[in-house]
Amino acid sequence: MYAVLMAGGSGTRFWPKSRENMPKQLLNIIGTDTMIQATVARIEPLIPPENVYVVIGQAIEDEVRRQLANIPGENVLVEPCARNTAPCIGLAAVTIQKRDPQGVMVVLPADHAVEHERRFLNVVKAAARVATEGPNLVTLGIVPTRPETGYGYIRRGERLQEVAGLSIWSVEQFVEKPDLERARSYAESGEYFWNSGMFVWSVSTILEKMQQHMPQLYEGLIRISQSLGEGKERETVQGVYESLRPESVDYGIMEKAENVLVIPGNFGWSDVGSWASLAEVNPTDAEGNVVHGLFVGIETADSVFVAPEKLVAAIGVKNIVVVDTGDALLVCSKDRAQDVKTIVEELKDRGQREYL
Amino acid sequence: MYAVLMAGGSGTRFWPKSRENMPKQLLNIIGTDTMIQATVARIEPLIPPENVYVVIGQAIEDEVRRQLANIPGENVLVEPCARNTAPCIGLAAVTIQKRDPQGVMVVLPADHAVEHERRFLNVVKAAARVATEGPNLVTLGIVPTRPETGYGYIRRGERLQEVAGLSIWSVEQFVEKPDLERARSYAESGEYFWNSGMFVWSVSTILEKMQQHMPQLYEGLIRISQSLGEGKERETVQGVYESLRPESVDYGIMEKAENVLVIPGNFGWSDVGSWASLAEVNPTDAEGNVVHGLFVGIETADSVFVAPEKLVAAIGVKNIVVVDTGDALLVCSKDRAQDVKTIVEELKDRGQREYL
Repeated sequence: MYAVLMAGGSGTRFWPKSRENMPKQLLNIIGTDTMIQATVARIEPLIPPENVYVVIGQAIEDEVRRQLANIPGENVLVEPCARNTAPCIGLAAVTIQKRDPQGVMVVLPADHAVEHERRFLNVVKAAARVATEGPNLVTLGIVPTRPETGYGYIRRGERLQEVAGLSIWSVEQFVEKPDLERARSYAESGEYFWNSGMFVWSVSTILEKMQQHMPQLYEGLIRISQSLGEGKERETVQGVYESLRPESVDYGIMEKAENVLVIPGNFGWSDVGSWASLAEVNPTDAEGNVVHGLFVGIETADSVFVAPEKLVAAIGVKNIVVVDTGDALLVCSKDRAQDVKTIVEELKDRGQREYL
Repeated sequence: MYAVLMAGGSGTRFWPKSRENMPKQLLNIIGTDTMIQATVARIEPLIPPENVYVVIGQAIEDEVRRQLANIPGENVLVEPCARNTAPCIGLAAVTIQKRDPQGVMVVLPADHAVEHERRFLNVVKAAARVATEGPNLVTLGIVPTRPETGYGYIRRGERLQEVAGLSIWSVEQFVEKPDLERARSYAESGEYFWNSGMFVWSVSTILEKMQQHMPQLYEGLIRISQSLGEGKERETVQGVYESLRPESVDYGIMEKAENVLVIPGNFGWSDVGSWASLAEVNPTDAEGNVVHGLFVGIETADSVFVAPEKLVAAIGVKNIVVVDTGDALLVCSKDRAQDVKTIVEELKDRGQREYL
């Protein structure tokens, strides 16, 4: 078994802490480990570091090698440009295939949070078993705990089997982020799961599916595969990537392929999608505040204060996000936390690159 | 004519920018001058720096001498402990009396803002004329521009005379800070003025009134007066102050004495009583925000952002105060700006003196 950590995200929603060369997955948004380190540690009982691959962009290569000194240097796969998840997964697949044609790969975003690690590992184990039993694409679904409008959903079809007490379902449909009313009915129905972006399949299966549904990508991957170990890998990858259209594996493969299965999990998952989500994945004080740093609060509730370098004093504020770094300060209504990326765009427009 | 700047305040409502050894009057809350420098500059067309006295506490002596290098060193009067405004004014009165028994003193808090300086000077000039015509205690009233509950009020009595187009009224009553309903009726009536805490009188008159209404203070002031120039001033002042009860000149003299007059002014005055008041005395952007520093705002209005050292980005917040210093960050609902002093008390209770 191999883990493939997708770590190409730019994480603009965690500005000002996240920057172009220091995106969310390299930050310790939760706890003391960075998110990518936590992802490696989480899967380690099942997959040793020498079987962990990371796919990243050039801008963060040095920092990733520093943070993940425990994984082999050749397992760090550098994409010359961002082409969404399908090429990323394909690149990892051909690389692992060269080493182990029977390999099973567990695809994990490097910037998610999981509360119950044992349960998570049990789901991955079951998914891996299903992935070896046939040409199956197994996706990890999350049992909804609230009517979330920020996630995509997976509608289950038939119950196909049970593995280690966990049900395996066929996928009926992938559903875009819903409005609140629909999110409520999805959460209540029991037929919908959150799309976590975590997948398990054998390298041979995913490459077959790419050959079938994304032939242009597949052709490029074959060229890359042939170049591996020949000393011209980087140039080949560069040439192939430049010719590719960005495409997600969800749209390119999952929504079209056969044998797409979902295994629902209930392990305290969060994609930690914005500063507002910190209360889901961090301890809060009695008033529901998440606080990183020294804090004095008066009638202040349900807020997020990240200012590890200084004392924060708050009076009479609710549902607010405050993040302080050396050079920038964010003050944001919690329900507008998704719009932090708009600030980043505005700074780009203004040419204030020192804050990006 | 002499100016007496009362600069003893500790200004906890401007924390975290104001600190024990750097209170509001020493900060540039508005513009580039500090408030005490601005007060000296404002009165200068009428009273040259060599006739300006400041009364302060020991903690800020060095900084005051640094900021007011243009006034003579001997004009900085240091109180050994805070005893409210009556002893402060008495100390200045005996000091000036020694130099000029016919002196008229203009008493000014060192931390107020005035928008229309010419109008202000005209009111002071008229008040000084009235102060030389008899044993009059002249207080500067401010024509209310809104139903403010944060100020004390002065109710006028008879119109006694007109000086340079300005009416001089007897004072009917000093009124404590009202509730909103009362503040509304005061503002509408035309019979009430804000109590600015600015006074004009001759040194002989104020000392006579102290002899009459505050005999214990007067006795102490005589001892101080006798010690002046004898080399033991500091010890004498120390001994006298230790024996005094704190008392305001409003309560000790103004509410009891005869010949108390008010001259109303309309010169864009503010006591700059809290961070929330900054919009009264600073330019605002199109959304009503006061901003000191680099700023990117999205749907953010009627707020105060003071963070001169960094970029501030705000999304979807209204009526909020944000103040950043090197070691502390305040985030406060605008209508709770008066409670900033509660934070200072809390920090005192916790023994976190480095933030005081």
